[in-house]
Amino acid sequence: MSKENTFQPKWINEAPVQNSFRSIFKYGAPNGFKHPNHELFNEIKQTFKLSDKDFEKPFSTGNEIVNLKKKSNLTTSQIEMFVSISGQENVSTNEYERLKFSCGKTVEEALKLRDGQIDKITDLVIHPRNKKEISDIVRYCNNQKIPIYVFGGGSSVNFGFLPEKGGVTLVLATYLNKIVSLNEQNQTVTVEAGMLGPAFEEALNNATKLFGTKHEFTCGHFPQSFEYSSVGGWFVTLGSGQQSSYFGDAADLVLGVEIITPAGTILTKNYAATATGPKILDIIKGSEGIFGIVVELTWKIFKHRPENRQYFSFIFPTWQAATEASREISQGEFGMPAVFRISDPEETHIGLKLYGIENTIFDKLMILRGFKPMQRCLFLATADGEKSFAKNVKRKVTQICKKHGAMNLTSFPVKKWEPGRYKDPYLREDLMDYGVIIDTLETSVMWDNLHEVHEKCRNYVKNRPETICMTHASHFYMQGTNLYFIFIIKETELFNYLKFQEGLIDTIEKSGGSLSHHHGVGRMIGRLMPTHLGENQINVLKSLKNHFDPNNIMNPGNLVHFND
Amino acid sequence: MSKENTFQPKWINEAPVQNSFRSIFKYGAPNGFKHPNHELFNEIKQTFKLSDKDFEKPFSTGNEIVNLKKKSNLTTSQIEMFVSISGQENVSTNEYERLKFSCGKTVEEALKLRDGQIDKITDLVIHPRNKKEISDIVRYCNNQKIPIYVFGGGSSVNFGFLPEKGGVTLVLATYLNKIVSLNEQNQTVTVEAGMLGPAFEEALNNATKLFGTKHEFTCGHFPQSFEYSSVGGWFVTLGSGQQSSYFGDAADLVLGVEIITPAGTILTKNYAATATGPKILDIIKGSEGIFGIVVELTWKIFKHRPENRQYFSFIFPTWQAATEASREISQGEFGMPAVFRISDPEETHIGLKLYGIENTIFDKLMILRGFKPMQRCLFLATADGEKSFAKNVKRKVTQICKKHGAMNLTSFPVKKWEPGRYKDPYLREDLMDYGVIIDTLETSVMWDNLHEVHEKCRNYVKNRPETICMTHASHFYMQGTNLYFIFIIKETELFNYLKFQEGLIDTIEKSGGSLSHHHGVGRMIGRLMPTHLGENQINVLKSLKNHFDPNNIMNPGNLVHFND
Repeated sequence: MSKENTFQPKWINEAPVQNSFRSIFKYGAPNGFKHPNHELFNEIKQTFKLSDKDFEKPFSTGNEIVNLKKKSNLTTSQIEMFVSISGQENVSTNEYERLKFSCGKTVEEALKLRDGQIDKITDLVIHPRNKKEISDIVRYCNNQKIPIYVFGGGSSVNFGFLPEKGGVTLVLATYLNKIVSLNEQNQTVTVEAGMLGPAFEEALNNATKLFGTKHEFTCGHFPQSFEYSSVGGWFVTLGSGQQSSYFGDAADLVLGVEIITPAGTILTKNYAATATGPKILDIIKGSEGIFGIVVELTWKIFKHRPENRQYFSFIFPTWQAATEASREISQGEFGMPAVFRISDPEETHIGLKLYGIENTIFDKLMILRGFKPMQRCLFLATADGEKSFAKNVKRKVTQICKKHGAMNLTSFPVKKWEPGRYKDPYLREDLMDYGVIIDTLETSVMWDNLHEVHEKCRNYVKNRPETICMTHASHFYMQGTNLYFIFIIKETELFNYLKFQEGLIDTIEKSGGSLSHHHGVGRMIGRLMPTHLGENQINVLKSLKNHFDPNNIMNPGNLVHFND
Repeated sequence: MSKENTFQPKWINEAPVQNSFRSIFKYGAPNGFKHPNHELFNEIKQTFKLSDKDFEKPFSTGNEIVNLKKKSNLTTSQIEMFVSISGQENVSTNEYERLKFSCGKTVEEALKLRDGQIDKITDLVIHPRNKKEISDIVRYCNNQKIPIYVFGGGSSVNFGFLPEKGGVTLVLATYLNKIVSLNEQNQTVTVEAGMLGPAFEEALNNATKLFGTKHEFTCGHFPQSFEYSSVGGWFVTLGSGQQSSYFGDAADLVLGVEIITPAGTILTKNYAATATGPKILDIIKGSEGIFGIVVELTWKIFKHRPENRQYFSFIFPTWQAATEASREISQGEFGMPAVFRISDPEETHIGLKLYGIENTIFDKLMILRGFKPMQRCLFLATADGEKSFAKNVKRKVTQICKKHGAMNLTSFPVKKWEPGRYKDPYLREDLMDYGVIIDTLETSVMWDNLHEVHEKCRNYVKNRPETICMTHASHFYMQGTNLYFIFIIKETELFNYLKFQEGLIDTIEKSGGSLSHHHGVGRMIGRLMPTHLGENQINVLKSLKNHFDPNNIMNPGNLVHFND
């Protein structure tokens, strides 16, 4: 055992080879890594009955150079028109570029790219320099019936911008990446849709210097994909950040938008509330590029006061106790924690390993007090906002947790979790190098069907021999929460993987969960939308699609099938 | 003077004569009254240069019996069909009934009815007994192209259900007035759309007895029209309650709906959050009957804990100070007060009279400390929610108010305000009996245009000689608030009144306010919707209208003009 225990695979620790498949599918920063730690590695070997020998040589790396011959299907005169709009240097027919901006971050894409398999790629990559160019492109494409897809940060996990019918892909982050204006009085910022999370947050955190404000600000939205997702993407996919229980979901944080559609441009009015009929802003929420292109957003901002943040963590004897306490907190009406996560027994088991809590004094104390592995559940939280408010949230949460039999783990676990919170998906490439897949699916539940959905989905996953299935709830509301399933399986066959994934999506839907809590729909779960929402609801979406985009050029095939 | 001071007009203190015009236009309960008190009466006499003599005999009372001969335009076979659906006893062609259920509570309607003027009335009043009947009625009307209007509580102030093209009016409060189910775990209640505020709240306040729950609950929504408005009406008109700064606006409080439209019935799914594309629920918000009939709603409920409520009031030296403090509170991130109202100097002047504060020890102290009449501004608030939370809100608000130069008036003024909070509109009939009109308009503003909208609208009103113009802000958000204008003018000519009102609506729009914060659109401000939102937004609404209601039978002419 001691020999095995010191072995670590040679996890790839360099940026992908330039122009390689890996440079496209690798999640996150090219130079960013989070290798499985010793404990996780052992758990995986044990679960999948693997030995160190299986980790001597990668199964695949995808570091081969992309070398494909896929001529653009656009005509020369069409390409010339796009060049005349956005400039030669901002238009590319290069195959690597076209593949790169056609791919999101699904496991399916990673599996295919590792294998050199390529389905659909865009015919042209355009980096528009401003709204005017986008408007010209939309008008021309509508006239020529050329499909348009938008690439924001590229972190879609459901083929949200897959160019399935060819056409052009607009990359918004190249130029539309700035704050247009900040209004301290209204606590709003108007921002271009292609601005990525880190730049947006950094500018807000430095508002006094950059905008001459009295306070520093924060955007309040920190999804796991924060580093590679755009403000526009957050909104059109109905994203949620890791502090959403306090700050709200992305759609709650947007006051107004400007959207360019084949039916014209709409700039909604900014009011904190208005009673002027059904709101066009609401209709654009979650539209995932099928109506038009959101180019600017007015975002609600909050005062940036990290010094007020409270950290607290608990361990619960059971999942039942953790969920009951979470419901009592969510319905407590004393304000909500910001980070608010409970892990089910299996995720807790892995989490304690990952956060380095296993075998510490905390672990010993837990065992001593009867918190049993594979029964106990971890609770991580922070409280934000004004200081006395945040302190009171912590105090009330503590009371409720104790009432439900929890033990206080201090701020230690949540502080261990926090720094790596955007990095967990980086594990994916390491594991896939050796034929092990880690992937996620998520859903939204009401309190009264949380356990049914959790159990049915877990049973589905665990029915496959040798799987790890971790679940947490991390976005809380008075009426319910989300469930986030992370499963690890040993699989290298694409077909088998897709069958397995499809079955889990079906199980979520059949057990009463929503098809998506915060990943949007995309092309992955679109097939179930008619079943999920019913024909009459889909018909409303179809009528809107037909209004905005009668030629079906905007992200065709996404969300649900229109005009097919 | 002493003789004048004791004179009081013989305000009408009996329920309107049965079947009279007054029985239709009188606001609120037939036996409910709130007569102008001595101080207000004196203020009105002074402003309009009236003497006691002018109040010896009413100008009009509207207590004349309705006696109109307006045959229903429906055919006998059409009426028979409705009878076969809803039963003879639930269908009426009686002229009085038809007039009654055609009228809302605008001043225009009251002026006309006092004068015996009648424009449009419905052809048939139907009291459907259940959803199935409504579905049958919608199908038949769509087939026969018969317009449908819905009467909820009848408190519309913008002709939201005026049967301008004839047809049938469905009265929902007669049968669809019950709670269908209450889910304590999810903190939701499913309620029929026609249930009125008091019955709804009373049932929730007695949930332990009625539904066997552990807690009592509250709906959290208390508009001034509470006594005569329905849950469905709150939602489709985007209403706001007097405690909305804490509980949220009506549309925020609805998790799901069932709507019957000519294009079929839609029952949305209940999730606290979901990312499955643009949400049909959002599209139905504020639809004011133009797409279909909302028959059931799933409403978010809160624990009923009146014992936790904190009361507090302040006086500010100026409107500027009151608004600045309110902004700091709204952006303070320590939670929001529930009742949260600031009155401008003129409203404060009247308010101190109405709440009996003038000439009390409070008033003397205020004067002594330099809070000058017609400069000072009243701030009334409560805090709800969990006890320590509510206490902390009060503590933080107190700190901020003091920082902005306010003096603490204790709980006295807000407790004086609270019991009469639904009754203020009852003043209207008394004043109109003597040719004095009291009416309101309201708007939504961002913090940075609050003063511009306030000043421009006040200037407009005050440009008319002899007017009282009171303004308050009473619904607060991080990004802005509303402005509620109450104006009192001496006018008996309908035409003059409408010109004046139209000018104020135009002023609101031109100064940058929203056309409506919480009264909806109706037929009164619909004319300005294209200017306000722009043609491209209106076209989206038109496409939705065309989808749900291609024959334009659902509340035709409401919101904006479709298919005309």
